[in-house]
Amino acid sequence: MLRRIHHVGIVVRSLDEGYRFYRDTLGLPLIKEATVPDQGVRAALLLAGESEIELLEPIDPQGGVAKFLEKRGEGLHHVCFATDDVAAELEATKAKGIPLIDQAPRKGLAGMICFLHPKAQHGVLIEYAEPFPDDAGH
Amino acid sequence: MLRRIHHVGIVVRSLDEGYRFYRDTLGLPLIKEATVPDQGVRAALLLAGESEIELLEPIDPQGGVAKFLEKRGEGLHHVCFATDDVAAELEATKAKGIPLIDQAPRKGLAGMICFLHPKAQHGVLIEYAEPFPDDAGH
Repeated sequence: MLRRIHHVGIVVRSLDEGYRFYRDTLGLPLIKEATVPDQGVRAALLLAGESEIELLEPIDPQGGVAKFLEKRGEGLHHVCFATDDVAAELEATKAKGIPLIDQAPRKGLAGMICFLHPKAQHGVLIEYAEPFPDDAGH
Repeated sequence: MLRRIHHVGIVVRSLDEGYRFYRDTLGLPLIKEATVPDQGVRAALLLAGESEIELLEPIDPQGGVAKFLEKRGEGLHHVCFATDDVAAELEATKAKGIPLIDQAPRKGLAGMICFLHPKAQHGVLIEYAEPFPDDAGH
C-alpha cells in the first residue's frame, strides 16, 4: 500500500546551486547528502514538512541522470511513494504487469527502494521507498 | 510553513488514458475531476495514501499545459506543497525575492493555490495549496 508521496527527485547541475535556492532561499533543512554510485549521482535530501525533496547532481556522464539533464535540463525527475514493505509492493506491481526497472529492492538514499519503468506511467518515473528505521519520521 | 507535498501534477494526453494506469492498474481512487479554465485543463485528483496525484489534460491549445505536452511530452509537470495559509506563504515567498506566477492566491482544484515561477527553482514549477476545508483530510 502506498502511504504518501515521500519525495520528489529534482535534477540540478550542481548541489551547491540547488542548495542556494531550496535550502537557503526556500528554507528547507538539509537532512543528508551522499554519493549513490549505482544511480550515478551525488544526492541530497531536504525536509519539506512531512515530505522531502531529493536533489540529484549527475557525477557519471553515462548515467541516466546525466542523460536526463542533457536532454531535458534541470527539473522534476521522479516521484517516490513511501510504503511499509517495498518488497511486497514490488511483487504486487509486478503481478499487475507493470514494467519495472528494478526486479528487487536495493539500497537508496531514502531507504530500500525500487523504480518502475516510466514507459507505462505516462512518462513519469515512479519510485517506491521503504524508509530506513532511523528515518521513520520522514 | 510548508506542511508536506500535497500532490504532483502529471500532464497526460487524455484523462481516460491516465485513469487506465493510475486508477485502474495502480489502484489510486479518483477524488474529483473538473475543468479549470484559467489553467486550460481538464484535471483530476487521485488519492495516493495521504497524498494526491493530479492528472492534467490540456483543453486549450494555447495554454501552458498544452505547450508543455507539445514540447516535453507526458510527464511530471509540477509539485504542490500544502500550507495552512497560502496568502501568508505567498507573501513570505515574495519577500524573499522569489519570482512568482501568481501575485495573489486563486481557486484551483486542490484549494486556494498559487504558482511560483520555475526560472528560480531549477526548472521546477512549484505550487502552494491551502486545501478547501471539506478536503481537509487530504
